[in-house]
Amino acid sequence: MQDTHVSLAHGNGGRYMRELIEELFARHLANPRLDVDADAVAIPLPPGDVLVTTDGFTVQPLEFPGGDIGALAVHGTVNDLAVAGARPHYLTLNVFVEEGFEIAALERIVASLARATREAGVAVAAGDTKVLRRGEGGGLYLATTGVGIREPGRRLGLREVRAGDRVLVSGPVGDHGVAVMLAREQFGLRGDLRSDAATVLPLTEALLGIDGLRFMRDPTRGGLATVANEIVRATGLDLHLDEALIPVREPVRAVCEMLGYDPLYLACEGRVVAVVAPEATEGALAAWRELPGGTEAALIGTLSETRNRARAILRTPLGGERVLEELEDDPLPRIC
Amino acid sequence: MQDTHVSLAHGNGGRYMRELIEELFARHLANPRLDVDADAVAIPLPPGDVLVTTDGFTVQPLEFPGGDIGALAVHGTVNDLAVAGARPHYLTLNVFVEEGFEIAALERIVASLARATREAGVAVAAGDTKVLRRGEGGGLYLATTGVGIREPGRRLGLREVRAGDRVLVSGPVGDHGVAVMLAREQFGLRGDLRSDAATVLPLTEALLGIDGLRFMRDPTRGGLATVANEIVRATGLDLHLDEALIPVREPVRAVCEMLGYDPLYLACEGRVVAVVAPEATEGALAAWRELPGGTEAALIGTLSETRNRARAILRTPLGGERVLEELEDDPLPRIC
Repeated sequence: MQDTHVSLAHGNGGRYMRELIEELFARHLANPRLDVDADAVAIPLPPGDVLVTTDGFTVQPLEFPGGDIGALAVHGTVNDLAVAGARPHYLTLNVFVEEGFEIAALERIVASLARATREAGVAVAAGDTKVLRRGEGGGLYLATTGVGIREPGRRLGLREVRAGDRVLVSGPVGDHGVAVMLAREQFGLRGDLRSDAATVLPLTEALLGIDGLRFMRDPTRGGLATVANEIVRATGLDLHLDEALIPVREPVRAVCEMLGYDPLYLACEGRVVAVVAPEATEGALAAWRELPGGTEAALIGTLSETRNRARAILRTPLGGERVLEELEDDPLPRIC
Repeated sequence: MQDTHVSLAHGNGGRYMRELIEELFARHLANPRLDVDADAVAIPLPPGDVLVTTDGFTVQPLEFPGGDIGALAVHGTVNDLAVAGARPHYLTLNVFVEEGFEIAALERIVASLARATREAGVAVAAGDTKVLRRGEGGGLYLATTGVGIREPGRRLGLREVRAGDRVLVSGPVGDHGVAVMLAREQFGLRGDLRSDAATVLPLTEALLGIDGLRFMRDPTRGGLATVANEIVRATGLDLHLDEALIPVREPVRAVCEMLGYDPLYLACEGRVVAVVAPEATEGALAAWRELPGGTEAALIGTLSETRNRARAILRTPLGGERVLEELEDDPLPRIC
């Protein structure tokens, strides 16, 4: 392939598209089962319940400290399967790339995506590329669908949550949101701030063996506060969060204070929020803290019955309380 | 939902996005198994080999005679499973919608998409929406991944094709390409030209019972000529097509002559090309001709050994021969 930039002909089903698929996608996503000539491919699966999830990715900039849109597309979809209690096995990949996009940048992103699939132990089973006309489409959008297997009969979900249950988070929140914002805005504040984008599979698998695990979710768009509101809305319970217990890295806190963001509403891409029975709290925290991605895991809140409209309530370090409202205006669009 | 146009807040994970999902997507795509609050959903499947396929859709205009991007996204993915010999069961849906897009138009397209899922007997198991900044992204892009089940041990594919095999097409070619082109260019030539966009599932299921079925494909981007080249490249056989036998509707032929297009390179979205053993030809044609979508099914070519570089060769009505070269420059970008 001699071209340096993507042209409309790379999306037309003909020779240029075949070369792009063979020489770029198939080379990085080497999968002996991937038949690039087939309309649909067989995906051998172990026994269990089949789960699917899907996500689109439009993050800007496409590359940022700690990750890029390619790795994010894998982590995001792998993580949605992981928090549902499934082991991810396959992904499908849709690429929407703008005419004129630099092929070297596309290759860098596809190579990063491929690395993320190897880390998570998933194979790209099928893919498709469409070329968008120049000036339409901010360079590159991705969509990934994941297929995973969950142990049959596994009870996990918001329906399992009870009053008295505890809420845990696997690590500091807001890193991804702040890292992408700083990469975008070029405040010259970057410092050591990196996205937390990573597979959460080790974190979720560590909890699957623990009795009393009720629910897991990865706080992405809308952050921890949005997960808190989802729990409240689905269960009708009050969620009491203790701000002093919620891990937020010092540079994230500093940037948020300077710019007026609330870290509880900023996206993470490598964290897990879990709800567990009270007696499972210590075991779950201990299991997480043994893992590289869980050393700062913390108990951050408790669920209780309410007589009013159920709310997510944050106790501040000074002893006050404020309601974590559902997100309306987005502080940071295009974060994933 | 009181908004008339999509805003960035509809993609941010908060209240506006939840309302868009609940009041527009979930309402049209009513699926009792679809849990809009879950990260990943279980998809019960009958026994058999699990197949996946994925496709992106960027057609312009979004609505055209005979279809729209919503129906096309379903047909395209259902059809890829169908020609692989699978029965489609589930889709995932990714929506990339531009800020400022009219919600009434989005609803029309989602309703059409929902109708197509009901026709094909598939359920949307998971979805995701991202909002693109105004001026980026031509209104709406879709990506769909399909999951289907194929009878175990079914041998179907380019590897099964042999010299002497016959090539059939289920109906006239080029309708979709010409219909979209005319809708786009507003030549005032529309007449009765409509896209052939439809599920091909009845056509593929009619052939699955026939001994000697080797391979099926739906000729989309790049048209019949591109499928011919794929067969040639994968088998190393010459493919002899007889132009006089290839069904092309009269108005499609007239528009192509006027504008200098070759209908053999134009996309179809509801046709099947099948390769069958010689003795299966009559049975396959008879099975197709009983179906509403197959009344104009035809035998159009034969495969043979070659001593040279294998080629797709078209015999013209005047007795001449020309090679159908692999597509390079796209006559009609953004056709699907």
